[in-house]
Amino acid sequence: MAHALTRFFAPRSVAFIGATEDLSKFGGRCMRQLIDFGFPGAIYPINPKRDAVFGQRCYPSLSALPEAPDHVGIVLPGPAVAGALAECGAKGVPFATVFSAGFGEQGTEAGRAAQAALVSTARASGLRFMGPNCNGLINFTDRFALTSTGAISGGALRPAGDVAVISQSGGAGQVNTMWRAQEAGLGISVQVSCGNDADLDLLDYVEFALDHAPTKVVLVLAERIGSGTRLRQVAARAAERGKPIVMIKFGRTEAGSKAAASHTGAITGADAVFDAAARQLGLLRVEDCPELYEAAMLLRQGRRPAGTGVAALSISGGNLVLLAETGAGLGLHFPGYTPETTAKLQPLLPGFTGTANPTDLSAGAIGAKDLFGQATRLIRDDPGVDTMVPVLTIAPAADIRATCALAAESAKPMPILWSGKCSDDASITAAALVAEGHAVYRDPLPCLRAVSLAARHAGFLRRFAEPAPQRPAGMDQARAATLLRAERFSEADARALLACYGLHGPREALVATAAEAVTAAASIGGPVALKVASADLPHKTEAGAVKLGVSGAEAVAAAHAEILANARRYKPAARIDGVLVQEMVTGGQEMLLGITPDATFGPVLAVGFGGIHVEVLKDIAFRLPAIGPAEAEAMLRELRLFPLLEGVRGAPASDLPALVDAICRFGWLAADLGNAPWGDAPFEVEVNPLIVLPAGRGVRVVDALVLRR
Amino acid sequence: MAHALTRFFAPRSVAFIGATEDLSKFGGRCMRQLIDFGFPGAIYPINPKRDAVFGQRCYPSLSALPEAPDHVGIVLPGPAVAGALAECGAKGVPFATVFSAGFGEQGTEAGRAAQAALVSTARASGLRFMGPNCNGLINFTDRFALTSTGAISGGALRPAGDVAVISQSGGAGQVNTMWRAQEAGLGISVQVSCGNDADLDLLDYVEFALDHAPTKVVLVLAERIGSGTRLRQVAARAAERGKPIVMIKFGRTEAGSKAAASHTGAITGADAVFDAAARQLGLLRVEDCPELYEAAMLLRQGRRPAGTGVAALSISGGNLVLLAETGAGLGLHFPGYTPETTAKLQPLLPGFTGTANPTDLSAGAIGAKDLFGQATRLIRDDPGVDTMVPVLTIAPAADIRATCALAAESAKPMPILWSGKCSDDASITAAALVAEGHAVYRDPLPCLRAVSLAARHAGFLRRFAEPAPQRPAGMDQARAATLLRAERFSEADARALLACYGLHGPREALVATAAEAVTAAASIGGPVALKVASADLPHKTEAGAVKLGVSGAEAVAAAHAEILANARRYKPAARIDGVLVQEMVTGGQEMLLGITPDATFGPVLAVGFGGIHVEVLKDIAFRLPAIGPAEAEAMLRELRLFPLLEGVRGAPASDLPALVDAICRFGWLAADLGNAPWGDAPFEVEVNPLIVLPAGRGVRVVDALVLRR
Repeated sequence: MAHALTRFFAPRSVAFIGATEDLSKFGGRCMRQLIDFGFPGAIYPINPKRDAVFGQRCYPSLSALPEAPDHVGIVLPGPAVAGALAECGAKGVPFATVFSAGFGEQGTEAGRAAQAALVSTARASGLRFMGPNCNGLINFTDRFALTSTGAISGGALRPAGDVAVISQSGGAGQVNTMWRAQEAGLGISVQVSCGNDADLDLLDYVEFALDHAPTKVVLVLAERIGSGTRLRQVAARAAERGKPIVMIKFGRTEAGSKAAASHTGAITGADAVFDAAARQLGLLRVEDCPELYEAAMLLRQGRRPAGTGVAALSISGGNLVLLAETGAGLGLHFPGYTPETTAKLQPLLPGFTGTANPTDLSAGAIGAKDLFGQATRLIRDDPGVDTMVPVLTIAPAADIRATCALAAESAKPMPILWSGKCSDDASITAAALVAEGHAVYRDPLPCLRAVSLAARHAGFLRRFAEPAPQRPAGMDQARAATLLRAERFSEADARALLACYGLHGPREALVATAAEAVTAAASIGGPVALKVASADLPHKTEAGAVKLGVSGAEAVAAAHAEILANARRYKPAARIDGVLVQEMVTGGQEMLLGITPDATFGPVLAVGFGGIHVEVLKDIAFRLPAIGPAEAEAMLRELRLFPLLEGVRGAPASDLPALVDAICRFGWLAADLGNAPWGDAPFEVEVNPLIVLPAGRGVRVVDALVLRR
Repeated sequence: MAHALTRFFAPRSVAFIGATEDLSKFGGRCMRQLIDFGFPGAIYPINPKRDAVFGQRCYPSLSALPEAPDHVGIVLPGPAVAGALAECGAKGVPFATVFSAGFGEQGTEAGRAAQAALVSTARASGLRFMGPNCNGLINFTDRFALTSTGAISGGALRPAGDVAVISQSGGAGQVNTMWRAQEAGLGISVQVSCGNDADLDLLDYVEFALDHAPTKVVLVLAERIGSGTRLRQVAARAAERGKPIVMIKFGRTEAGSKAAASHTGAITGADAVFDAAARQLGLLRVEDCPELYEAAMLLRQGRRPAGTGVAALSISGGNLVLLAETGAGLGLHFPGYTPETTAKLQPLLPGFTGTANPTDLSAGAIGAKDLFGQATRLIRDDPGVDTMVPVLTIAPAADIRATCALAAESAKPMPILWSGKCSDDASITAAALVAEGHAVYRDPLPCLRAVSLAARHAGFLRRFAEPAPQRPAGMDQARAATLLRAERFSEADARALLACYGLHGPREALVATAAEAVTAAASIGGPVALKVASADLPHKTEAGAVKLGVSGAEAVAAAHAEILANARRYKPAARIDGVLVQEMVTGGQEMLLGITPDATFGPVLAVGFGGIHVEVLKDIAFRLPAIGPAEAEAMLRELRLFPLLEGVRGAPASDLPALVDAICRFGWLAADLGNAPWGDAPFEVEVNPLIVLPAGRGVRVVDALVLRR
């Protein structure tokens, strides 16, 4: 089934309101490029003052057209745009692109109102539109360009390709990314600069690109993500299609860190949340435009590395050292070869070189017939090698061609690092090889950055194929929902809510007799506290009605008797409910679990270490809930202080399985908060500290807070 | 005065042992390039089997030459090289380059011995040589090339320039850096690939480049730095000349992390020490080869930013957001403009744009006559702007030329970010503009990375101009030297050594009478401990001869009497020296001060937080001693946990001046250890913890360790 935006991207006919032949004007440049780009359908320039524009018959108005065009471009002064959209609606036009500025981007009330008026005008007829304040779109696949950008003017028409570029901004998307990608040898399928996203938005175009058969990789430059829910849907579709989304997310979310006024949110800001969400959803986030298209060179080949093992082969030792050091910083490793590979490799190599990975053939190998190719094949086929990087510096055409042929036939990813030039054929350039479909990099860093992204994407797809996290047993959602109807939450309410999800405080039992106290203490284990339970004794310590750190049956029985006697002596009229036998929580590691409301994603799960260091180190991991145990453990391993949980300097290891279980349960609370009907009054929850006891002894909620904003 | 290596780089005549016309051989390629490169002096090929090589008269041996050439290239099988060096010596040749492999790089005893034999042969005659296992040198300034690299073959001869490239490896230096820099429009002055550094070494060539008048920037790729002392000298010369050294340091130091087995050294490894040393010495360390030449584009202009303030101006909002976000990660900031600048700027800008920095002219400004130039000038002249970045995407030649002209006349650094192309003149490319002397970048990240390096270098030169750190008063070096002669160190010895440098433990006084005890306690301040001083009472607590946390005159007097009485009762025969009144050190922040012996730099100063976090976080700052207070404070501010010293969550601020003073004093101990005559038995010193008390209360050495390795 065709995507709903098919006729937006590939209209059969197009009209342009504000057409002119004046190339100093926006409308003139757009018209010229629409014609020059070879659009195969009907073009209807609209301008009441002209009979023709660039040889195309010009119409006075939309209503004068012989048909309703599939797509209408609008370049008019801001105040005239709403009228033009109404005309489109009346004519039955399905899609428009509004280039005009002067709307929401002004940041004024008037601008926002004018933009809202465009939306309501369009909604009245079912018209969908892009913009305002945008620079249009280019569909290389179907030869449709509705944009002013100079990136497609001058020189021959570029061939259509397999990389989509979707961006809110103009220059960064059309020049820094699209045009530069083309200069680097890549072909573009569709490109969008969508501006203010008043009606259709960035994620709609991304979704189209995911459904667009020729597109293999989608590059996104986003200033704003409107809806986290929609982003999750689009990311899931990308995963189902196996198409990578590589993304620059700049600016912070509009409401962003201001809205996230919670403790954890305020510490790290909304960008850290977006970063974590992007990783979790399989979106490959990068920092600068070249990283977008450099990643696409490798990703579009669709070969997925089975892991993070890389091998490299060269006659340039310096490049190999650079690769090895760069790889370590990117989470890649260079495994040693198996004895079988080593045995086969040894006879090929010149005297002075070894079979370490990366493998240095040394300059002695220059000119040795197909030695490089044979060694590349042997190393590539080593079972520990997930990605093979042949390295060239200055080489003759025959060597370069042979390496490219090997890369093309390889089932494993084989990006080529080529820092130099072809010594005997100037027409062989990195861009020319990329245009043929090879992944060719000029420097170690971009090469391994792309490998690292490919490995990350492949790992994500493997995780995506696993079953979704299951709701753990013993969670009382119904009672939680009742509790959440409260306006304010005492600490006891907060504890009760957490208990609904199986997160408990110190163990305790209310007993009547000394014998019961002894049994309870034995079942709790370790030293206990005994407290007389009585609403009539607010100052229990003063009354001698508390004993701390009591161990052993005899002592427990004695303490039971003593504090009851003390209480009766202190206030004979006190009504006594019994004696509370409570676990003493000592030692253990203090953790912080938080649920922080994010403006884009709703309730977000946060995990860090408790205490003073969380503020100073900002050492917090985020996830969108719900999550399963593997993801919960991954959160912990992201924390710089993680080794503390494994036990440092002889300290005992913490109960990691219990902590992982607690994080999962807490994540379900976050997920339920996001689905509940109190969307406009987001909750903030913080457990600080959650004490993680040594292995086998579980976790305890020591302090908890629930806020309704 | 000419540098000692002048005739090495610019010989009047050159001989080549192993000359051939066979271009499949190393010697053939070197000979061909020596001739083609236009060397103006006499060339003497040496090969007993030939009469001529490429039309040059060929000689059977060095001794047959009509003169002693200034420089001899040697391409012979490894075992024949020593003989050739002896011949050079006999002929009175001053310099040789040994290309041949099969020496130290093999990592075998035989290889090292063969290399040592080359050195002793050369030393016998005073001959200096480069290599072995190297790929020679290229002097573009004087047209002398003695190398096999294909990077100078094919195409026209490249013009000489102002950037030197000094590297141990071949490919990474000659291809990834030199050739690629040339492709990017830079001119090279000299290039060296020096190999094993058996005699002359990397730093000798760097030093030559610093003295070489046409060279403005030195790019270094180092696998090994032989001597930290020599590196400090060369770095100081670079600072005196104001010439930046930009450096990739790969591999770890040979002995490296193994040698640095000390606590702190083992935690972070020798690379962290090198990184800190490089910053301290003003060496600009980068990660990948493009960063080397991209930095050179801006640095060679010699305009030094006064600070980290950057402004940018564009019609592409996306590029500006990228710049702002990239800058924040690189330690740069985009200051708001002064009211004066804003007032002048306002009338120039189209309706919808503001005067924020970065400044978005928006697409509305396209075609507006010289608006871009006027705004650029106004913003550049704002006093808060240290570096001005005009941003171009796709622009006509006139606009690009105008921007370049503005940049050329500017006293402030003005790198141009140009992500696109020239819309009406294909001959105007980024490389062409760089070749004219402009600093032109294609993407925000490399642009601001260069700005950040320029700002760092300018800051370093300002610090370098300040007086060297002064030795603080009250340090007893003579006594320290006496103590250091010991073979082993008790904790008391360690404390005594630290005391020589003014670093003391808890305050204490030995008193006889109760009145003296009261006076001592008052002078110490706060609660004190009282202990009976007696070698005959090893178990003082058992004897009741200790009282902790005593406050107030009466209590002190009573405690004095009580513990003396207890002691006498416990062991009437004990000889009592008096009573020790000791400060109780409670609260405060635990720090770690260390001196760790580094294989390259000798004793290195390390500062971190004490306790368990130092191991987990590896949060340690290093410096080469000695340092002054500003550098000591900078060390502290590098630590991620630094805010703990300022007081977090209501905790009191620590005594930062006292801590800074202690670090300086400890640094002088490190410096003295490096200068003392016990070089082969390096010391390791660790104070852990040093307690930093709240402001005004000083620091206390609580535990100290001195090891002699």
